[in-house]
Amino acid sequence: MEPITHKTFEDICIALEDDAIVYGVLPIENSSTGAITDVYDLLNKYNCYIVGETRVKVNHHLMGIPGSTLEDIQDVYSHPQGFEQSKDYLSAFDWKLIPYYNTAKSAEYVMEQNRKHIAAIGSKKAAQIYGLDILADHINSNHQNTTRFVILGKSLNSDPTCNKISVVLSTPHKAGALYHVLKHFAENEINMLKIESRPVGHTPWEYNFYIDFEGNVNDATIKVALDHMSKDCHHFKLLGNYEMAK
Amino acid sequence: MEPITHKTFEDICIALEDDAIVYGVLPIENSSTGAITDVYDLLNKYNCYIVGETRVKVNHHLMGIPGSTLEDIQDVYSHPQGFEQSKDYLSAFDWKLIPYYNTAKSAEYVMEQNRKHIAAIGSKKAAQIYGLDILADHINSNHQNTTRFVILGKSLNSDPTCNKISVVLSTPHKAGALYHVLKHFAENEINMLKIESRPVGHTPWEYNFYIDFEGNVNDATIKVALDHMSKDCHHFKLLGNYEMAK
Repeated sequence: MEPITHKTFEDICIALEDDAIVYGVLPIENSSTGAITDVYDLLNKYNCYIVGETRVKVNHHLMGIPGSTLEDIQDVYSHPQGFEQSKDYLSAFDWKLIPYYNTAKSAEYVMEQNRKHIAAIGSKKAAQIYGLDILADHINSNHQNTTRFVILGKSLNSDPTCNKISVVLSTPHKAGALYHVLKHFAENEINMLKIESRPVGHTPWEYNFYIDFEGNVNDATIKVALDHMSKDCHHFKLLGNYEMAK
Repeated sequence: MEPITHKTFEDICIALEDDAIVYGVLPIENSSTGAITDVYDLLNKYNCYIVGETRVKVNHHLMGIPGSTLEDIQDVYSHPQGFEQSKDYLSAFDWKLIPYYNTAKSAEYVMEQNRKHIAAIGSKKAAQIYGLDILADHINSNHQNTTRFVILGKSLNSDPTCNKISVVLSTPHKAGALYHVLKHFAENEINMLKIESRPVGHTPWEYNFYIDFEGNVNDATIKVALDHMSKDCHHFKLLGNYEMAK
């Protein structure tokens, strides 16, 4: 299989639904700055399943066209997370921070513009690919900075090696509804790993809860829990079953 | 009391700790785009309490200096949430979106620059204050768009009218830890309203959970639950008790 790039996260989901690609890889969470919320929203919107996950250590570098220096820089392009994760370094400068599609596209844009006052924040690999000079290296505040990526496919993976399940659900708008859903984890002794809340969108103050927990969809207790949960929820979607990243 | 403005959300927390102000008002959540995550992080970091909350309907407008037109615009300044909430409208244009401190400061910046190619996204009030023309009105995608604000003070409010409690906690990094904390809500029949997760920061994949629930800190069952929860947690902080916005 050949890897191909897409401009936006949503384009990857569309390509997957259209069978233009077999797998999609999307960043879902960073260890320093938290959830990549638009990816959570896309998982709920599109018909695809998480079939794997992986963690990649991320270092950010400031890069410009060959010959440019820190003193030349006026505008910096990156994904908003690139700015957020390099906040301490950037606070010492008065640069315009311009959010762009992703860090690779930012590096490509700097190369295309070929102007000394424009820089990008991205990986060493991006600097190599687009022939840029690194003006400042390892500018991320947290040197344990790691991003978790999910691998998306079109069908549910239920291999016996899969030990982590993700679901999204919304509860009816009444007292105790969230607790009623969460109690299925307790009653079936399922280990909940993470909860994220996102607004439903159309109705203010209603939430989709994204829950990760341990298990395989073929386990008897998991089957019971999923069945009961889906009955107690307003909206319930199985997002995938996969092997937990180590 | 005279209202005064500060440049960043963190400046408000610092001013409160330094007794330079009596109350601070910070946006915590938008009904369309979700949590304002840096405000959650600040609540954990600074010594202050949520003493109230209020909901404000937010409409976004595109504004420029008098005489400017849509065709002049090249750069648009706003808080990242202003861009996010106006995403559908903005997708039709090829403008540079430049994140700025907040929507009011963005409008002020456009006025100061006094150049036709720079616009801001903000409220009608900001356009009036800074003498800007509205070039496009109600550009937010969701017309129910509402922001919830918290009012911060230096001491805990425990008036009998307070019926909502916020806490932040982190659990030990072991199986079932999150469930062990959440079960105190169930055992004491406390109605959980919301859960947000944020990375702890120093240790990848450990989270602070921000939980809102119904109750008053002087209720007997709440006292028991808070006491038990704080014992089961790695980190536990009462963020405040206040009257729920209607």
